[in-house]
Amino acid sequence: MPTGKRKEVAGHTISIDLGGTKMLAAVVDGQDQIVGRAKMKTMARQGVDEVIQRLAETAQQAADKARVKWDQVAGVGIGAPGPVDPEAGVVYNPPNLPGWKKVSLGPRLADLLGVPVYVENDVNLGTLGEYRMGAGRGTRDMVGIFVGTGVGGGLILDGKLRTGFRHAAGELGHMVVLADGPVCGCGRRGCLEALASRTAVERDIRLGLQAGRESLIPELSKGRSLRLTSSVIAKAFHKGDPLVADVIRRAQWYLGLLTASVVNLLDPEMVVFGGGVVEALDDAFLDPIRVTARQHYIQKMDAGRVRIVPGKLGDYAAVFGAAALVRDRAAGIPPARD
Amino acid sequence: MPTGKRKEVAGHTISIDLGGTKMLAAVVDGQDQIVGRAKMKTMARQGVDEVIQRLAETAQQAADKARVKWDQVAGVGIGAPGPVDPEAGVVYNPPNLPGWKKVSLGPRLADLLGVPVYVENDVNLGTLGEYRMGAGRGTRDMVGIFVGTGVGGGLILDGKLRTGFRHAAGELGHMVVLADGPVCGCGRRGCLEALASRTAVERDIRLGLQAGRESLIPELSKGRSLRLTSSVIAKAFHKGDPLVADVIRRAQWYLGLLTASVVNLLDPEMVVFGGGVVEALDDAFLDPIRVTARQHYIQKMDAGRVRIVPGKLGDYAAVFGAAALVRDRAAGIPPARD
Repeated sequence: MPTGKRKEVAGHTISIDLGGTKMLAAVVDGQDQIVGRAKMKTMARQGVDEVIQRLAETAQQAADKARVKWDQVAGVGIGAPGPVDPEAGVVYNPPNLPGWKKVSLGPRLADLLGVPVYVENDVNLGTLGEYRMGAGRGTRDMVGIFVGTGVGGGLILDGKLRTGFRHAAGELGHMVVLADGPVCGCGRRGCLEALASRTAVERDIRLGLQAGRESLIPELSKGRSLRLTSSVIAKAFHKGDPLVADVIRRAQWYLGLLTASVVNLLDPEMVVFGGGVVEALDDAFLDPIRVTARQHYIQKMDAGRVRIVPGKLGDYAAVFGAAALVRDRAAGIPPARD
Repeated sequence: MPTGKRKEVAGHTISIDLGGTKMLAAVVDGQDQIVGRAKMKTMARQGVDEVIQRLAETAQQAADKARVKWDQVAGVGIGAPGPVDPEAGVVYNPPNLPGWKKVSLGPRLADLLGVPVYVENDVNLGTLGEYRMGAGRGTRDMVGIFVGTGVGGGLILDGKLRTGFRHAAGELGHMVVLADGPVCGCGRRGCLEALASRTAVERDIRLGLQAGRESLIPELSKGRSLRLTSSVIAKAFHKGDPLVADVIRRAQWYLGLLTASVVNLLDPEMVVFGGGVVEALDDAFLDPIRVTARQHYIQKMDAGRVRIVPGKLGDYAAVFGAAALVRDRAAGIPPARD
């Protein structure tokens, strides 16, 4: 048992983001500060055992950087893409880790590290982070919408993360907004992701350029092959690029319709938007979404009380979400089943 | 306190459906049997006081028919359209009762009847009924989709009715499925209701007839002005009417897409379909919806475990939902806030 100067025992948590190419670990202390970090390549091709070994090493490196010993760590929270079983700590078939099928990631890593390891979907952790330490603090209901190369989402309902009957909830990027619309990365048509993700925005900008539309994009890319990062898109948008403005406006329209659909279905207290384009454009991005959404609420009563806001944690949402997850579980709060 | 033969005390509940033109009351006993009914005109034009008086009379008549005394009644559950505050028993602005604004229906009727009165949205009660006594028994998560002149919905998440932050949840008829699509009764475009309600089906059949499409509808209507009831539509569909088949197929497509969107967002255990057309066509109606929905699930894992089924209670779903509501509240279970 801890005595004397070891008073911080178990006040730290370690968050790991398990990506297809790299894994990132961060130590969060009891005051919500990141006090150590580490990064390694995932090396997914070398197989499950090797990846789990590398996760243990990355966690160890982060702990070393933070000068934190394992008896000061309450647990490790891992965010993985795709559905996970948070009770069993099982990762099903993460889209970015081919060959992983029903891997008992939580128990196996816990064996290596000697502390509890909890597993959750990465976007769910981002949502939980914004809810507990970010934009959603103080609400009981919050929908997270993260616009990146895809569109991910998460739901906090009645104060709890909803993971769903099959642990597959929150996939609002694959809600159909325009039936028979453009083909999505998932192979179907008209999903929000095919209309409003950065991938969709890039596709439409490129199509516009190919069609000879006037744009600042070639100049901003300085002759190199077109690099349509969020910041290049944001720069062109702010300079009044007519093509980019058109394309962004269209994405905002669909995001507004989707937001209204989600509000009409769930009637949440808050919708938090995150992701590269959102962060780069901030209110210039959210304002038209707010207008379209509100126009499409079926219930006008108290419409202004439903807040649509940017996230506050940026890239760190999932890090803090994992910290919140570990703290809850260490305190005996069971994972949300649904 | 009850003694001897008065053992049934408080085993009964009274359900009232408050419609714009009529009000229906039903007494449900402790064995889920309807043992008495009554019906009166709403007479909404005569004002709030008169309507509340008539609600009391209708409840009294139903109790008389059932030979039930008020000390045998645990409470009254009222279903009203539009948002309600179930904690305060307040009805906001029901679309079919013009002039009603923030009416304290529950407390006022409770004063008249001398028993507790609980108020809930009528579609939420239908969902609760199917969940507790119908198709959804034994699940923890259930989405109700009711296809009628409009499309209504309700959500049971984690065993509780979700009413929403503004008590406006479940409006899946106004989720946008086809951006910039046909105009909806709500004034916006592309809502599910504008694509798949009986109103939308009727509209498209009439347009087809006007355009000279071949159809059995004129014959089935026997020369009278076209009566496109659910049973006429079902009859034409079963006889292979090409126009009706086209129109129904389209409605099913949109209902399938919407079902997939809701499953992708919420990942529920079951989706229950109710309403006139669904009941008239049953599996012939649901099978194509099942196929389309499943094609559009982003998470294929365990897709077959998400059941899409017809309701079991038909027109009585809300009656039983009101009974369940009264029993819960009488047992001290608070209303779902969100």
